[in-house]
Amino acid sequence: MSIVTADISVSADGFGAAADQSLAHPFGSIDQDRLHAWMFDHGDDNAAEVAAILDAGAFVMGRNMFSPGRGPWDLDWRGWWGEEPPYRAPVFVLTHHERPPLEMDGGTTFHFVTDGPEAALERARAAAGERNVSIAGGAGTLNAYLAAGQVDELRVHVAPFVSGLDAGSRLFAGVPATPLVPVAVRGTPHVTHVTYRRASA
Amino acid sequence: MSIVTADISVSADGFGAAADQSLAHPFGSIDQDRLHAWMFDHGDDNAAEVAAILDAGAFVMGRNMFSPGRGPWDLDWRGWWGEEPPYRAPVFVLTHHERPPLEMDGGTTFHFVTDGPEAALERARAAAGERNVSIAGGAGTLNAYLAAGQVDELRVHVAPFVSGLDAGSRLFAGVPATPLVPVAVRGTPHVTHVTYRRASA
Repeated sequence: MSIVTADISVSADGFGAAADQSLAHPFGSIDQDRLHAWMFDHGDDNAAEVAAILDAGAFVMGRNMFSPGRGPWDLDWRGWWGEEPPYRAPVFVLTHHERPPLEMDGGTTFHFVTDGPEAALERARAAAGERNVSIAGGAGTLNAYLAAGQVDELRVHVAPFVSGLDAGSRLFAGVPATPLVPVAVRGTPHVTHVTYRRASA
Repeated sequence: MSIVTADISVSADGFGAAADQSLAHPFGSIDQDRLHAWMFDHGDDNAAEVAAILDAGAFVMGRNMFSPGRGPWDLDWRGWWGEEPPYRAPVFVLTHHERPPLEMDGGTTFHFVTDGPEAALERARAAAGERNVSIAGGAGTLNAYLAAGQVDELRVHVAPFVSGLDAGSRLFAGVPATPLVPVAVRGTPHVTHVTYRRASA
């Protein structure tokens, strides 16, 4: 059965990004190298978790995940991932600014959705068919879907460092009190992978 | 070699207690049953971790961990644990108010330390001898020792629920950016145990 999954890398104190995001520093002043070392420097140790992130039939992401811009689109901007992004599936980008779909190499097409998270999820479900839909982040977008009770499986990748941040994008911010069901946990030297399922209603 | 350990139970969003602590609700409005179910309702599943918490030669705790009072001591108050507390060792309570030592049954003696966290830790180290010193909480006290770089082994017990709190006692609050070394992780149905060591200087 098709489910909605979500992955996020956080510091031990729960941050997915700092508040001061920019083109040069898309995750802001959080130590991005430490946050993602498990994936980029130690992918062999964490191959199953890396593969699981991309094993979806469609993706939903927030505007900041695609672009650091706040205003209307710079139509020359084609995302952080180069001409062949790793998604290889439709990606629905939440935004307030219309933009035509952007077809990339390798099967990824970015669709820009201006009618809200619920509509984006519906479109992603339809595009994914029998496959899963993945909420690709950032934390704010993920928290919105968690608050709405729409994430079936949440995979938290806890990087082993304290960010030292006072503010930023924190996993679970604004999410109401919710029980979770831990279904898997695995540690490697550079990350702790914790998988939660939504408690049955 | 004797080391300084610390244990804390937190929600998935990192809270060890809510801000509104009281005698009736020493952890405030956080869901205390969910926070501690792994220990009190499912201790058999988590026997090793429960035993490790109490395996120290001396303990340090914050004032709120001993008593919810803010002013001078009510000398009739003898802690939350009845006449035979589980510590069975000297416990050094950080406070601004002097009070004579309080000898309980079973080997626990509460000592009230008014000259600060460093002095309390020194006294605990001396009392523990070859055994470990345990920082028993709460989160504020633990964060002070973490910020000072004095915790050698931190054991975080993540209970599977989102607290829904906006404010409260959060693990790592005020702790500067710090790398951690994850040395063990174990999941049971009601908790995820993550053990960190301090990175070598």
